[in-house]
Amino acid sequence: MMKLAVLGTGMVGKAIANKLVALGHEVVMGSRTADNASASEWAGGVGERASHGTFADAAAHGEMIFNCTRGSVSLQVLEAAGAANLSGKILVDVSNPLDFSRGMPPTLTVSNDDSLGEQLQRAYPDVRVVKALNTVNCDVMVDPSRVPGEHDIFVSGNDADAKSRVTTLLTEGFGWPKVTDLGDISTARGTEMYLPLWLRLFGALGTADFNIKLQVAS
Amino acid sequence: MMKLAVLGTGMVGKAIANKLVALGHEVVMGSRTADNASASEWAGGVGERASHGTFADAAAHGEMIFNCTRGSVSLQVLEAAGAANLSGKILVDVSNPLDFSRGMPPTLTVSNDDSLGEQLQRAYPDVRVVKALNTVNCDVMVDPSRVPGEHDIFVSGNDADAKSRVTTLLTEGFGWPKVTDLGDISTARGTEMYLPLWLRLFGALGTADFNIKLQVAS
Repeated sequence: MMKLAVLGTGMVGKAIANKLVALGHEVVMGSRTADNASASEWAGGVGERASHGTFADAAAHGEMIFNCTRGSVSLQVLEAAGAANLSGKILVDVSNPLDFSRGMPPTLTVSNDDSLGEQLQRAYPDVRVVKALNTVNCDVMVDPSRVPGEHDIFVSGNDADAKSRVTTLLTEGFGWPKVTDLGDISTARGTEMYLPLWLRLFGALGTADFNIKLQVAS
Repeated sequence: MMKLAVLGTGMVGKAIANKLVALGHEVVMGSRTADNASASEWAGGVGERASHGTFADAAAHGEMIFNCTRGSVSLQVLEAAGAANLSGKILVDVSNPLDFSRGMPPTLTVSNDDSLGEQLQRAYPDVRVVKALNTVNCDVMVDPSRVPGEHDIFVSGNDADAKSRVTTLLTEGFGWPKVTDLGDISTARGTEMYLPLWLRLFGALGTADFNIKLQVAS
């Protein structure tokens, strides 16, 4: 049993938090205010291992913290969570820097020579940021068997031990058959910039229940 | 037999041109000058269906034209090829807007709310631009069996007939089992922005002989 935090009360936050509670972990869902209706309803419906509070409450509780907020607000959310509550911990950054303000499909607020994962890592140098899961829909994140066959998920981060711990949770907990380590946190540029292709594939395929499988010559 | 043009004398241009000649087509490889040594050597080594000339010579010859130049110079190349020589024809845009000037890995010169495919289409409205093949290494483009199993390739473009003709060449000629139509030319943003992930996968996998397979829930 781990003490875990989920920042964000949207579909992604709830999918991740539900899965973590189902795996037996003690989860605090964090939001901007302590009385957030969505977080309160979630915690009330899930049982005794689930509770909710502010971003700071959640971050103080978690030994591993999932950033499931919109990428456009993630830096503000971490500021609200508080550097002292984040220090030394693993931050699993599930978010994407999508900008919906210019219509559909969204563009990225940061790309090419930087990424949201790197922005978070730079803002909190002693936090161990691991970019993960941001290349699939939230339902697939926590239940890869929704998509047939084997398919792939990635981690990016500067801390090998943190990536190893996240990989273990993804394989043994979430059911991913394997996790590909892309390298340091700058490789988050790759998975974040995949999102525009994901969005076009979503349009062409007509479902979010898809993913990519790496086929590699031996 | 088709009359085809390949713009560009690099690895991608030669791989595509070799394949097109092997399929029985009559190919002119275009370059900046009529006496380009690389193009001359290529044409001399391939046989009577291969010749070379300026970008304009090649474009005038081709009923279908492959843009295999570096993305950073593609607009200049099309200008040299000449609007009259391109008019009404299918332009298969294989290139990616990679910018190597800021070190490795390269960034993209255009992304997010525009793409190279769209830039070419806007510059030449009566050319039928089809973005294709830019998501794999040139060896895989023309021989998908280098990578085991089934895996996927995409087309983007505004002209359904042009996409259909390119798809037929890719399946019956190049050996792709299937081609996924992502939609209009703006979907080239998706496949071009996949390149940063491709580059990181290349680094993590240690080979360019890979591709992605779409796994989709039924």
